Amino acid sequence: MPVNYATPTPAQLFPVAGVRLGVAEAGIRKANRRDLTLIELAPGSRVAGVFTKNRFCAAPVLVCREHLKTASIRALVINTGIANAGTGEPGLAAAHASCAAVAQLLDIAADQVLPFSTGVILEPLPVDRLVAGLPAARAALKADGWHEAAHAIMTTDTVAKAASRKVGADGTAPAGSAANRATAVTITGMAKGAGMIRPNMATMLGFVATDAAVAQPLLEQLVKEAADESFNCITVDGDTSTNDSFILIATGQGGARFDSASAPGWAEFKAAVIAVARELAQAIVRDGEGATKYIEIAVEGGRTREECKAVGYAIGHSPLVKTAFFASDPNLGRILAAIGYAWNNDPALADLDVDKVKVWLGDTLVAENGGRAASYREEAGAAAMKPAEIRIRVDLGRGTCTANVWTCDFSYDYVKINADYRS
Amino acid sequence: MPVNYATPTPAQLFPVAGVRLGVAEAGIRKANRRDLTLIELAPGSRVAGVFTKNRFCAAPVLVCREHLKTASIRALVINTGIANAGTGEPGLAAAHASCAAVAQLLDIAADQVLPFSTGVILEPLPVDRLVAGLPAARAALKADGWHEAAHAIMTTDTVAKAASRKVGADGTAPAGSAANRATAVTITGMAKGAGMIRPNMATMLGFVATDAAVAQPLLEQLVKEAADESFNCITVDGDTSTNDSFILIATGQGGARFDSASAPGWAEFKAAVIAVARELAQAIVRDGEGATKYIEIAVEGGRTREECKAVGYAIGHSPLVKTAFFASDPNLGRILAAIGYAWNNDPALADLDVDKVKVWLGDTLVAENGGRAASYREEAGAAAMKPAEIRIRVDLGRGTCTANVWTCDFSYDYVKINADYRS
Repeated sequence: MPVNYATPTPAQLFPVAGVRLGVAEAGIRKANRRDLTLIELAPGSRVAGVFTKNRFCAAPVLVCREHLKTASIRALVINTGIANAGTGEPGLAAAHASCAAVAQLLDIAADQVLPFSTGVILEPLPVDRLVAGLPAARAALKADGWHEAAHAIMTTDTVAKAASRKVGADGTAPAGSAANRATAVTITGMAKGAGMIRPNMATMLGFVATDAAVAQPLLEQLVKEAADESFNCITVDGDTSTNDSFILIATGQGGARFDSASAPGWAEFKAAVIAVARELAQAIVRDGEGATKYIEIAVEGGRTREECKAVGYAIGHSPLVKTAFFASDPNLGRILAAIGYAWNNDPALADLDVDKVKVWLGDTLVAENGGRAASYREEAGAAAMKPAEIRIRVDLGRGTCTANVWTCDFSYDYVKINADYRS
Repeated sequence: MPVNYATPTPAQLFPVAGVRLGVAEAGIRKANRRDLTLIELAPGSRVAGVFTKNRFCAAPVLVCREHLKTASIRALVINTGIANAGTGEPGLAAAHASCAAVAQLLDIAADQVLPFSTGVILEPLPVDRLVAGLPAARAALKADGWHEAAHAIMTTDTVAKAASRKVGADGTAPAGSAANRATAVTITGMAKGAGMIRPNMATMLGFVATDAAVAQPLLEQLVKEAADESFNCITVDGDTSTNDSFILIATGQGGARFDSASAPGWAEFKAAVIAVARELAQAIVRDGEGATKYIEIAVEGGRTREECKAVGYAIGHSPLVKTAFFASDPNLGRILAAIGYAWNNDPALADLDVDKVKVWLGDTLVAENGGRAASYREEAGAAAMKPAEIRIRVDLGRGTCTANVWTCDFSYDYVKINADYRS
């Protein structure tokens, strides 16, 4: 069960003009489950994406990169069950065949289609079954299909992840207020992922769409920034997936138009896109495999954002820290140990002066001057470990940069889920 | 229970002339357990060590580094229960006080004593109890005390780890043969560790002693090489400890003398020291917290040894790979994913051509040409996952360098042990 997260209701997910979604049962890996999603975009939509940096990246990731270079994207096709990664040339052919089939169905060109897959790595994609399921997905296309689609892209997820909001396009009226309705911008997104989560440039399938018109260079900059502030700050198990993809779609079907970063309302719009991306990213951590606790690691006082993230990830990946949180045991020396070896992630930390490091758990000062804080009491630590949401704050005491990493604890169920997955 | 490892019997651990060991119950953290070990070295013994690179290194590690610079070491004092790490100035004072107490008891100088601690981080060392236990440890000193000492330094270890062998000093006679007995060299060592294991330069307390005389520069070079070929190739959970220490002692009380690397018998002696260190390091992995499988990851075809190790560690740290081994499920795409993101550990791998990578499980070729090997059958993979000892072989196809990493699987019991430890 996720930590303090519930899927928004269908009514809470605003349709985005120019986007229609349809799902179907294609029997990709298992029967009787919706595992195929088709997304149709209005002509003129602009699309930008960031993808995994895993060298064994999936065939659909390669095809997405290629198609985003050359074409105006009109459709996305997503299957779960099989990741189509580690599948070599046949995998690439299967991804291309999926695009061709969608193109034929929608009367567009194959390079106007972006393919996505998620599931088991190293097994062949049954592309015939995928193609056979497409007509049903097309028949199901509808503007309010986000809720169903968010469910259809799940694998080990226990809940569907989606987020939606409206903001005033000119930044002057409260989000979604009646006064601003005419120029309001809608932003709706969905994501999937629960394990093999340590995105590098993007995450395991995140899709955010807006009805604003956004100039292509601006959109490409925004998708990177949004990923860096959201999906690129989370980890469940430190395993960077082969299929991570985060896609930002701007259909231009609403009234708002952003041609440059100085356009009125851009700052508010950008903040809203990042907020939606962050909500989705955090939902993935809240639904991390076996998670019982949601943990924010806020690192400050670094010389660079990178070294702050290196410390955040060292703590967030440590199985010892994560099992201590599972047990609600304030065995906080494990956090210090992780800070101490974080230079493995960023050599700039090799000269970290530990006497200047401070660590808080919630509001409780735990460590300073190279050791346990004089004011620290075990009971305060024990109390701070209890809540389902916990904030670890680290001050490195050597600069002004900050970074956040979001993660979850490590429980029996993580082992169970990953020992059982596939079987 | 450890994977295919049993503690040698007392008779299998040869005493090393010039080394006496004694243990006692000091009640450091828990009552009624032997938690204090004293090791006395004959005058003229030479000692070299390597220590953790964790920035939050323990107070005893700082003191060891200092004492090794200036003094001829005559004693080692080891406590379990409390790591004396993350303890700031008071921790340093406690480590110094331990040395002073040992010095008084043995009529030597305080800087001739090396202190070691292992256990919980961030809690103060009850140095009074340690000092009070010293006379009993001293009274128990004996040449054949290795077996008892190996037990007394345990924390979450389920078995004591020790190794011993004799080699012909001139390399001409079989190890320990009667003909060679007069010039034989004895090498005996012990180690502890089961969790927080990802040594960087050394491991969580490893001690190896020999009765050979070894020139100090040679000894210092050998301790580094032995660590690099043993403790620095293992991982249980990726957590580099604050207390890792690996100590090599040469008492010079036997007949053999090595003044330079060209001395007769040096190569065989060196190989034997490395073999003892490796046996101890592998014993730690076999006794890895919750381990049910022992996994060797042999990486070849790299441009550098470092990039081979980066790939080995990416695989060896992946919770997804480790849980798949626990389940004996040949979900081998997870190995490919880990190879694909290994460039996180070594940027030189960012241009890895995955089409040239080959992966074997035991003798079964699993992946080549960027995907699953045509010859691979699921049944062969399933069979290869079953044994308690498994070898993963990876050919990066871009060079001639190699490296091995030894690790274990990830089970419910790892979570249980680390959620319960301390309580």
